[in-house]
Amino acid sequence: MSTALAQALLAPRAIALVGASGDPAKNTARPQRYLRQHGYTGRIVPINPSRAELFGERAWPDIAAVPGAIDHAFVMVPAAEVERVVGACAARGIPLITVYSDGFAEAGPEGARQQARLVTLARAGGSRLIGPNSIGSIVPPNGVALSVNAVLELPQLAKGRLGLISHSGSLIGAILSRGQARGIGFSALLSVGNEADLSMGEIADLLVDDSNTDAILLFLETVRDAPHLALACRRAHAAGKPVIAYVLGQSALGRSLAATHTGALAGDAEAMTAWLDAQGIVRVDQFETLLEIAPLLRQGQAGGGRRVAVVTTTGGGAAMVVDRIDSATVEVVGPPPAVIDKLAALGIRIGNGPVTDLTLAGTRREVYAAVLDVFLESDHCDTVLAVAGSSAQFHPQHVVEPIAEADRRGKRLLAFAAPQADAALALFADAGVPAFRTPEACADALRGMGRWQPPSSAAPPAGDEVAAVQAATTLLEAIGTDACDEAQAREVFAALGVPQGEWRVVPVGDNGVELSSRSTLDLPSDPLAASLSAPLPLPAAVKVLSPDILHKSDMGGVRLNCVTDADARAAISAVIAAAKSHMPAARIRGTLVQRMERGLGEVIVGYRLDPRIGPTVVVGAGGTLAEVYRDAVVRPAPVSLDDAAQMIAGVRGLEPLRGYRGAEPGDLDALAFAVRRLSLLACVGGANRGTGGPVVAEAEINPLVVRPAGKGTVALDAVLVMMQPGEHA
Amino acid sequence: MSTALAQALLAPRAIALVGASGDPAKNTARPQRYLRQHGYTGRIVPINPSRAELFGERAWPDIAAVPGAIDHAFVMVPAAEVERVVGACAARGIPLITVYSDGFAEAGPEGARQQARLVTLARAGGSRLIGPNSIGSIVPPNGVALSVNAVLELPQLAKGRLGLISHSGSLIGAILSRGQARGIGFSALLSVGNEADLSMGEIADLLVDDSNTDAILLFLETVRDAPHLALACRRAHAAGKPVIAYVLGQSALGRSLAATHTGALAGDAEAMTAWLDAQGIVRVDQFETLLEIAPLLRQGQAGGGRRVAVVTTTGGGAAMVVDRIDSATVEVVGPPPAVIDKLAALGIRIGNGPVTDLTLAGTRREVYAAVLDVFLESDHCDTVLAVAGSSAQFHPQHVVEPIAEADRRGKRLLAFAAPQADAALALFADAGVPAFRTPEACADALRGMGRWQPPSSAAPPAGDEVAAVQAATTLLEAIGTDACDEAQAREVFAALGVPQGEWRVVPVGDNGVELSSRSTLDLPSDPLAASLSAPLPLPAAVKVLSPDILHKSDMGGVRLNCVTDADARAAISAVIAAAKSHMPAARIRGTLVQRMERGLGEVIVGYRLDPRIGPTVVVGAGGTLAEVYRDAVVRPAPVSLDDAAQMIAGVRGLEPLRGYRGAEPGDLDALAFAVRRLSLLACVGGANRGTGGPVVAEAEINPLVVRPAGKGTVALDAVLVMMQPGEHA
Repeated sequence: MSTALAQALLAPRAIALVGASGDPAKNTARPQRYLRQHGYTGRIVPINPSRAELFGERAWPDIAAVPGAIDHAFVMVPAAEVERVVGACAARGIPLITVYSDGFAEAGPEGARQQARLVTLARAGGSRLIGPNSIGSIVPPNGVALSVNAVLELPQLAKGRLGLISHSGSLIGAILSRGQARGIGFSALLSVGNEADLSMGEIADLLVDDSNTDAILLFLETVRDAPHLALACRRAHAAGKPVIAYVLGQSALGRSLAATHTGALAGDAEAMTAWLDAQGIVRVDQFETLLEIAPLLRQGQAGGGRRVAVVTTTGGGAAMVVDRIDSATVEVVGPPPAVIDKLAALGIRIGNGPVTDLTLAGTRREVYAAVLDVFLESDHCDTVLAVAGSSAQFHPQHVVEPIAEADRRGKRLLAFAAPQADAALALFADAGVPAFRTPEACADALRGMGRWQPPSSAAPPAGDEVAAVQAATTLLEAIGTDACDEAQAREVFAALGVPQGEWRVVPVGDNGVELSSRSTLDLPSDPLAASLSAPLPLPAAVKVLSPDILHKSDMGGVRLNCVTDADARAAISAVIAAAKSHMPAARIRGTLVQRMERGLGEVIVGYRLDPRIGPTVVVGAGGTLAEVYRDAVVRPAPVSLDDAAQMIAGVRGLEPLRGYRGAEPGDLDALAFAVRRLSLLACVGGANRGTGGPVVAEAEINPLVVRPAGKGTVALDAVLVMMQPGEHA
Repeated sequence: MSTALAQALLAPRAIALVGASGDPAKNTARPQRYLRQHGYTGRIVPINPSRAELFGERAWPDIAAVPGAIDHAFVMVPAAEVERVVGACAARGIPLITVYSDGFAEAGPEGARQQARLVTLARAGGSRLIGPNSIGSIVPPNGVALSVNAVLELPQLAKGRLGLISHSGSLIGAILSRGQARGIGFSALLSVGNEADLSMGEIADLLVDDSNTDAILLFLETVRDAPHLALACRRAHAAGKPVIAYVLGQSALGRSLAATHTGALAGDAEAMTAWLDAQGIVRVDQFETLLEIAPLLRQGQAGGGRRVAVVTTTGGGAAMVVDRIDSATVEVVGPPPAVIDKLAALGIRIGNGPVTDLTLAGTRREVYAAVLDVFLESDHCDTVLAVAGSSAQFHPQHVVEPIAEADRRGKRLLAFAAPQADAALALFADAGVPAFRTPEACADALRGMGRWQPPSSAAPPAGDEVAAVQAATTLLEAIGTDACDEAQAREVFAALGVPQGEWRVVPVGDNGVELSSRSTLDLPSDPLAASLSAPLPLPAAVKVLSPDILHKSDMGGVRLNCVTDADARAAISAVIAAAKSHMPAARIRGTLVQRMERGLGEVIVGYRLDPRIGPTVVVGAGGTLAEVYRDAVVRPAPVSLDDAAQMIAGVRGLEPLRGYRGAEPGDLDALAFAVRRLSLLACVGGANRGTGGPVVAEAEINPLVVRPAGKGTVALDAVLVMMQPGEHA
């Protein structure tokens, strides 16, 4: 990312305010006032066609008329004039144009077209564009108060080391204001608006290189440019800067609208969460945790800190936090005998329970400090949660100061104060001790810390997978964007190495008898080459084969348990007749005859190109109940074998396959293999953006039968849906 | 409840401080100082054997020496001296004694015995006792700052109309302090300690009658006296005072320790939540909601307010709340065309989405006030959530004032401000507008409001249920506290009217052949009277019958699908042999032979006497997966048929029985009947405390088979466990 762009955004030497108003009551008059108020020392250039001067600054009628270099143009004119202004800014090579004006993509298709033209105009002049519909940028270290947000009425801006990037412009104000009240300051607060040109990921990348920024906070309403954001997260990780996100759109309201196919079961919110995890982004659940968690993460590495000891003077205050701790992410640990003995030698008696409650009697500096010190020195814990009661408000010397002054010895140390204790929180902020205003945010931060992992490594095809992906690509190229039937889907899955069992296609001829057959063994040779008289795999399931029939069972298109060849041939005629009768317009290619298979359990494995975060793979328990319970785990695709095994371990409904209550364990290695191989659809054809070629929109094996350990898996059904021209991605 | 007691607690005319210290650094010196500081105008009587005067007050060596009446004695002496002091207080008839000293029941069995003696001593003199281990009482309207809690360092206490009762003493300070910072005041803050004598319910009852209290807040760590608390809740409801609880002990950590039987599946936390719901108590999830929710509830009746319209100037701020709304409790509603048109006529254009976002452009008093007014006038919503952005901090005239001044017209109106906006929150508090500091607490309050129901009516046995309960009681009296076998359990369940299908007991004789039989038809006659040669119900399941064998299947004690009489008789010998071989010490009474039954689905119905809240009934989906998913609904027992139907509707895994995806619907009416009838165990024998007689600790039917609609249910298994002497309850 260019340093010119970073300078234009974070340390501009000259800012043009296009559409600045001379009426102090108008929002468009605010940026000029705010810039001066917050000590911006660069050049401010108001552009207003009807005024020669605005609030003491020389004003210009037009951006073209301004002498000297401009780093950043802030555009506040009505939507209809934005194109002209952006063109003029680009024409003079202003590196960065932020468009505050709204009425673009968020207003409908015509707005989207106008927005696209803005980008073209900007790029033509070598300019980059933020917005439209961006409320602006605030960079406290450099006095850049370039926004209409009323939060800038604050008499001064606290400087700090958190960089915030937000989809919501108004929330920038809420976050700045809440932080400032706590002594938490910012290196930058940046509104990305519609992300027509510069995306959140590209802007995050600028903060990775910003020496004023220690941690990057994201307020996300969506992800529009996953690859750039993923890249920025990797670079942030390498730079030791945690990336933390609050994400809108987690709602059950929204999820309940989703359909019941696998993609919906995976759900956008779950896919987003899995993607954030995979980028090493810490997702917080509570709004204020976004403000509060950074110093906790900065105290150590991703993946650490999980054994948490708790010291408190208020049992109730500590219990409010501990009660919300998810034992899957962090473990609350009581003190071992050595710690208890060491404190006893100092005359301090503590119990061995998970919470060390010193009570009101222990609300004294010499007690609290000694306990903290012994805990921080002991290797039974990685993190110490220090809780303060009413003393935090009026007697900081008892508990607050010992926490702020503790020698952490490389451990993590965080604080929660039960009462209203603004001074204590500010003291903690000054001391760099992560501190939390509510018990919920405190527990949320521990959960976030516990889930935090480095960005996951890529899992590209390797070894024989390379050829498998090539074979699948060849098949997809033959399919193009056509609707697939089950046989085509099976061929693609088989090419990737997902076991399909024994199956044949019996094409339908004019006289209703078979004309040819296909199987996994003769791929991709001419189907007609196979023997017409080949025996059917028995006992058989017989299914009508049509790219146009999704719910075969519902209309009599499936017959199970055909024991004899005669049974199967009768079933072939029956399912074809049923399909012709119920769906006369459907293209019927014949029947698919497969051997009946049994196993220990049934699993759904699916693949979906998520509109926001790209390829995903999902594993869920099979059967109606699993659907009712929405029990599935999703990850960005492709996944490694290890990741696939972790996914499987996360599906609660697969307990029986893990040997729950003496059940025979299933072949989970083979299941992980199948998940890994299906996830390679992310590497097939044109799935990698910009490479062209057909792209799989959705795929599903429902069910995949899991046999006993060592006996493998087999797909009982197969669905493949190709991306259509004009669809997302 | 006596008015003398209410006066002693809430408006004492004279307070004795037993163990008051003359050292201002000691905690025991605090109450005297705090009482004076906060304007207590009654008489303060320090008791200190070595001082004639303390901080300007005349001190007395002993409570017996004090002239004049004392309403409330606050006891701060070491644990070993408490008995003597309580005895002396009781001897002079002090109506209320609060024991601050700790080291009683919370310290172990010896402490529990000492604690019991305190109660005996107090009651002997007609005194009542709060604590021990109570941090004291704070009653701001009367200047009663009778506590050692450091929160009383506050220069003054805001008066208000919320009454708090807490198990945690330290949290009283946190709640007072957080409320005061917001302009939220209290009528009383009361620490109940160990509840040796006066329970939380009895103290809540005093607040029901307190004219200074509008709402009762509970900080709960347990429930020790469910009947009194239930009674207080009914009286509070009648008095129009909402009861609101924050409950510790919801943790997954704790639940994971529970065993897998039905009682544990129901779980203490779920039972507690269900019990709170049934009392009309609003349980909040977030700590600060406890402070904030009362005015929202006071604006209307339990059961109302569920259609929520949202007006905002910050889309992100509103989305943070809406995103967390559970559509099962409240519904977010967009404006209908009439509302849109009415505003358009005023020159205000709004969309029809669920959130009405006026944006920064609409952040003007005339716009915001008009939208609020039209929404509050319209009948499309019951509640209006008004959200303010950055203007809330610096420009209250735009949005905050219109909200505070709105004419509610009988609707509910609540506010959330996205930025730090302390002045706005105080303004809302003054105006009686419920306002929330975090989006999470705001959503939590809406959820609490949506779940809020009046205390549920009792569902005692009626009609033929009276005889059924009597018959079951007779059977239980014969059982006493013995371990039950399945036949005994079935007889009790059958007596209550839960269908048991066709079954017989084949007792084991010396020669291994049958000696007698029992069936549901000849209850409670002599089992030997039935015909020895009665045919077995075929096809049969054969199970060993022993009160000592819980997991029959695991040791070969069950044979299914015996088609012929010979099969069944072979199975009888086999299961007896298996039982004798695997568990030689078990008492083997024979075998239970029952007809194999099929249905559309299997359900678990259980009953358990919860140690905190008493009898409970639970319904869950049958099968391993339901256990894995912990999918069960629990309610206090007995439940009405309607409540039982609601429980069934709440079990997600029963979707197939509700006809999910075209499945044949099950007989849910019969299932509700079975649940109702099993729940009558709460009325059987000595289940109602204090009536004597045997008490059922646990019962379970797993599975209960549900047949198609109109065809009923049948129990396939039956477990009954009697309460043992010395157990809880």
